[in-house]
Amino acid sequence: MNKKIGIIMGSESDFATMNEAVNVLKDFGAEFDVNVISAHRSPDKVHAYAMEAEKRYTVIIVGAGGAAHLAGVVASLTPIPVIGVPMATSLLGGLDSLLSTVQMPSGVPVATMGIGKAGAINAAIMAIQIASTANQELRDKIVLHKKRLSDEVAKKDENIREKLGLL
Amino acid sequence: MNKKIGIIMGSESDFATMNEAVNVLKDFGAEFDVNVISAHRSPDKVHAYAMEAEKRYTVIIVGAGGAAHLAGVVASLTPIPVIGVPMATSLLGGLDSLLSTVQMPSGVPVATMGIGKAGAINAAIMAIQIASTANQELRDKIVLHKKRLSDEVAKKDENIREKLGLL
Amino acid sequence: MNKKIGIIMGSESDFATMNEAVNVLKDFGAEFDVNVISAHRSPDKVHAYAMEAEKRYTVIIVGAGGAAHLAGVVASLTPIPVIGVPMATSLLGGLDSLLSTVQMPSGVPVATMGIGKAGAINAAIMAIQIASTANQELRDKIVLHKKRLSDEVAKKDENIREKLGLL
Amino acid sequence: MNKKIGIIMGSESDFATMNEAVNVLKDFGAEFDVNVISAHRSPDKVHAYAMEAEKRYTVIIVGAGGAAHLAGVVASLTPIPVIGVPMATSLLGGLDSLLSTVQMPSGVPVATMGIGKAGAINAAIMAIQIASTANQELRDKIVLHKKRLSDEVAKKDENIREKLGLL
Amino acid sequence: MNKKIGIIMGSESDFATMNEAVNVLKDFGAEFDVNVISAHRSPDKVHAYAMEAEKRYTVIIVGAGGAAHLAGVVASLTPIPVIGVPMATSLLGGLDSLLSTVQMPSGVPVATMGIGKAGAINAAIMAIQIASTANQELRDKIVLHKKRLSDEVAKKDENIREKLGLL
Amino acid sequence: MNKKIGIIMGSESDFATMNEAVNVLKDFGAEFDVNVISAHRSPDKVHAYAMEAEKRYTVIIVGAGGAAHLAGVVASLTPIPVIGVPMATSLLGGLDSLLSTVQMPSGVPVATMGIGKAGAINAAIMAIQIASTANQELRDKIVLHKKRLSDEVAKKDENIREKLGLL
Amino acid sequence: MNKKIGIIMGSESDFATMNEAVNVLKDFGAEFDVNVISAHRSPDKVHAYAMEAEKRYTVIIVGAGGAAHLAGVVASLTPIPVIGVPMATSLLGGLDSLLSTVQMPSGVPVATMGIGKAGAINAAIMAIQIASTANQELRDKIVLHKKRLSDEVAKKDENIREKLGLL
Amino acid sequence: MNKKIGIIMGSESDFATMNEAVNVLKDFGAEFDVNVISAHRSPDKVHAYAMEAEKRYTVIIVGAGGAAHLAGVVASLTPIPVIGVPMATSLLGGLDSLLSTVQMPSGVPVATMGIGKAGAINAAIMAIQIASTANQELRDKIVLHKKRLSDEVAKKDENIREKLGLL
Repeated sequence: MNKKIGIIMGSESDFATMNEAVNVLKDFGAEFDVNVISAHRSPDKVHAYAMEAEKRYTVIIVGAGGAAHLAGVVASLTPIPVIGVPMATSLLGGLDSLLSTVQMPSGVPVATMGIGKAGAINAAIMAIQIASTANQELRDKIVLHKKRLSDEVAKKDENIREKLGLL
Repeated sequence: MNKKIGIIMGSESDFATMNEAVNVLKDFGAEFDVNVISAHRSPDKVHAYAMEAEKRYTVIIVGAGGAAHLAGVVASLTPIPVIGVPMATSLLGGLDSLLSTVQMPSGVPVATMGIGKAGAINAAIMAIQIASTANQELRDKIVLHKKRLSDEVAKKDENIREKLGLL
Repeated sequence: MNKKIGIIMGSESDFATMNEAVNVLKDFGAEFDVNVISAHRSPDKVHAYAMEAEKRYTVIIVGAGGAAHLAGVVASLTPIPVIGVPMATSLLGGLDSLLSTVQMPSGVPVATMGIGKAGAINAAIMAIQIASTANQELRDKIVLHKKRLSDEVAKKDENIREKLGLL
Repeated sequence: MNKKIGIIMGSESDFATMNEAVNVLKDFGAEFDVNVISAHRSPDKVHAYAMEAEKRYTVIIVGAGGAAHLAGVVASLTPIPVIGVPMATSLLGGLDSLLSTVQMPSGVPVATMGIGKAGAINAAIMAIQIASTANQELRDKIVLHKKRLSDEVAKKDENIREKLGLL
Repeated sequence: MNKKIGIIMGSESDFATMNEAVNVLKDFGAEFDVNVISAHRSPDKVHAYAMEAEKRYTVIIVGAGGAAHLAGVVASLTPIPVIGVPMATSLLGGLDSLLSTVQMPSGVPVATMGIGKAGAINAAIMAIQIASTANQELRDKIVLHKKRLSDEVAKKDENIREKLGLL
Repeated sequence: MNKKIGIIMGSESDFATMNEAVNVLKDFGAEFDVNVISAHRSPDKVHAYAMEAEKRYTVIIVGAGGAAHLAGVVASLTPIPVIGVPMATSLLGGLDSLLSTVQMPSGVPVATMGIGKAGAINAAIMAIQIASTANQELRDKIVLHKKRLSDEVAKKDENIREKLGLL
Repeated sequence: MNKKIGIIMGSESDFATMNEAVNVLKDFGAEFDVNVISAHRSPDKVHAYAMEAEKRYTVIIVGAGGAAHLAGVVASLTPIPVIGVPMATSLLGGLDSLLSTVQMPSGVPVATMGIGKAGAINAAIMAIQIASTANQELRDKIVLHKKRLSDEVAKKDENIREKLGLL
Repeated sequence: MNKKIGIIMGSESDFATMNEAVNVLKDFGAEFDVNVISAHRSPDKVHAYAMEAEKRYTVIIVGAGGAAHLAGVVASLTPIPVIGVPMATSLLGGLDSLLSTVQMPSGVPVATMGIGKAGAINAAIMAIQIASTANQELRDKIVLHKKRLSDEVAKKDENIREKLGLL
């Protein structure tokens, strides 16, 4: 995989959430690039970014909140898959971000994740899954990741059963 | 007022709603222009339209539904006021359109109307109100419009009171 | 622009939010006036205010929460544009304020902004945009404002890329 | 009871719903008055109506939809009890009407009923209940009404049990 | 007015909210009674309370949260007016309490107030308004109350205008 | 199983939905009883029904809509399990019924099913599952039912694959 | 009752909530078993658990949040009753958990409780109620439990009436 | 691309929606497979399908409604990307399907599309976009598809402008 995974977000305040995606990509050893560009505040940068995206990225992860247009705007301009992460919002819990990201018109999909940090983590995993379509090494890492998830749950099961004296 | 009022919509299916705005503008004798351009399906047309807007329009009325990005995208590119009309959607009643239109980040406002046809009618009136800031003739028409609204209600009052034998 | 921009709010507790609009207007060097008047607690003051509004103001910004009637009540009485800012509410996140402000009947529009502080900031910018319809100096300031937004995002992009070692 | 029960609605289209309240008042033999006046389209009529209300009415029933301000506006101007009926709306099911009617600021209550026709029927019964505070004859009719409700249910119980062969 | 105003609530945890109603009734010098009884945990007490209510109370104020059945259950058993106060709930903001209180079937109304403390205050005022139907002294107090609301807003207006140097 | 499964509903209009539960119980050969009684319109009948329930029924299925109190009221009065079926409502899609049924206070559970007909069908199956705790014959029928569900899906799979030429 | 009541949850973070159910079962002296297994992270464990459930448990209580699939997945695999507890979620208040748990397709019911801790407590009580179908001793404990609930409310009534000087 | 794109749905009634995805895949000349299997009614078939998926499919498109668990269940069992399409539901507009599909726990993503037919169409396009990661021919078709979308909008623009006499 020579092309990277692109991560963009609409505002610096989204970084605390999107950094979860960065960390997952580091764990997987995937190459990535990160930018803050805004559909509403720096539309020309968004246009330039999207027009160059196919050459540079396998897939783009986009975090945005409120009237969250960034993922849709990028998806309108590039043929590569775009994954949307709706930011949590303090007032409406991120329902505004979710609906603005997922309810795309037919013809221009955004692969939408759950709201907030779990969504950011899953965006990174979905990006790896997509990249693994052409990369067996990444595919093997996803299989391993699933095994690790299962092991972690088994350990938590043990912890709680021990705490309750059920072992 | 040499500049027109611009009306755009994201899809031909929005026309039944947005035509209500057209009819109001005709009633007021305001010059207008109408285009179908899509934030997601013809993004370059949207960019070109918005970059030319200041020269041609006083204000732009934008109808869009679902993940309704068109108003916000245009507002990001032009200094003139942008009025958003959230389309009714069959599944979520237009709540998705409303939140996608109104919850703009600080710095880039969209003057949002109610969902559906009442919103389209009101968008036209708000456009006239904005244009009337520099046009006394239009202002007078707004005053007249308010008088007419009141008269219509008075007539309906009479109708119903007559029907109920309360006159 | 001899006429001012009017700001009103229904309760003193709305001031923390509406002060954001005040600050934006100060930044733009726009003249403004501020009043606390309540659709429900001082209806006669609201009536008097609205009847005088056309002579004194270009546009009115109205903040109100819950069953937020103030913007609509003022809009019913004056021909000038009215911008509504739905206050955040602790229980329903401001969804009650938003629907009470935006869902106006056909004939009487309120130009509705997003919920809370971002909405208050945007109300001030929209007010300037409306006033700039007849004022090139204000229009130039809006163009500058958009440039400043873009510069700020570029700087945040640099910050984050530096933090991640991507520069 | 010399004073009547006042019924007002914001639009002629609300009459199909509010007529249910009229019919209940007729059934109870209560005197009533009906008007179409709009908080947004004929605000001066609303003001005049509310200022005269105490002299003429025991209680006022108000039907309004969308950004439903009529009940709150009347309640702000009269000391007598105001009952609000949120109209059903085709897009949001009347949730907008409900929140605009019920979420009044402290100090100015609106006695809110359910959305739509059941709400209109109940508004009339609540008006009778309020009027019955000073009128034993009406109180007796309410007691009878409750008996009739119970009898109707008993009959429906019999119907269904018969249909299912359970009698 | 020999009969009191009854206040009941479904849980001791509702008292912080319902105490707002108690304080308003004290301010108005109205006699009241307070009980904690639960539709779900002490149904027989609720039945006994409601069957005695007509003899003892002019009107009953009921606070309840979640699947808030208490107001409706009491309303089903007594001919006197029942006012419902939906408690705020931490998870759904009180929307569950509101819908459970207001959406009563036709025939059995509950006069519903806004969610939480503002609703509790307004319930007390509405109770006074209902009692004032047969009590001119109380009516005069309501008129005074409305004057006081207006004066308070005028003072807040002055405060803020002074703070902003607009006086 | 000598005791029957009780089915009650708040209104005759709920029968079209609750009849789905009746049909499932007939299919399973379970004995049942059906009544129309209303928490709000015939509260004394509800009380009498609930007080006798333990002697007559294993479990009670309750259908109710809007401010759906019937299931909770019955659950407050009987120690046997109560299953709630929230009726679909035309305005809010049954969300009011669902929240009124499910959000019970701690101490008094209602086993809530999905909204509408699917919920009524599932209420009957859950009732059988509960009864099967002490009845192996019923348990065997549930196992068979699950097998039949799987077979039906397999057949639908075949149908669609045939239609698409994928077999 | 030789078989236990099974409790499972999808994540260790659900334990603070589900422990409320554990405590209720201890109070009732019911035997129980607790496991952490995840529909999404350890699906094979879930499958194994569900296939063994009929032999080991009378009823299963399942806590899960967000896209809460665990209760439904277990219900699809076992003929015994499954009780679902929707976890509170910080962003959407648990509405996502509730809808994912309760809106099961016809044929496969989940007995859904309220959101969060009250739901967990009620799940335990419902489990006892179900087990009591074949166990008179447990039934007696439920009757006692209902008496205790009523006594607690009576005591709270006394507390508040004393605090207000109404005794 | 030797592997196919898998399409599954939980119920035959979902086919009218999911057939839109089938048609898009046919238009793109992509090979696909379609199955009806249910997370709740045929869980063992789902398990078998998912365990074989990696060998047979590049990506899986899953349509499900209500408590829509199918996409999440499949995603838990396979390392390949899973795209979820929330079915429209008559009562809650598909909001239940959407939240059940998108709010996955961290570790197991589902790439969620919009509700209903637009979502099904977009699922097919996203599947092609994912497959095109390793297939330049498909990538070229996506570029062409975007061009066609733009052309269609241009034509609709012309139609409406002609109808309004604006050409």
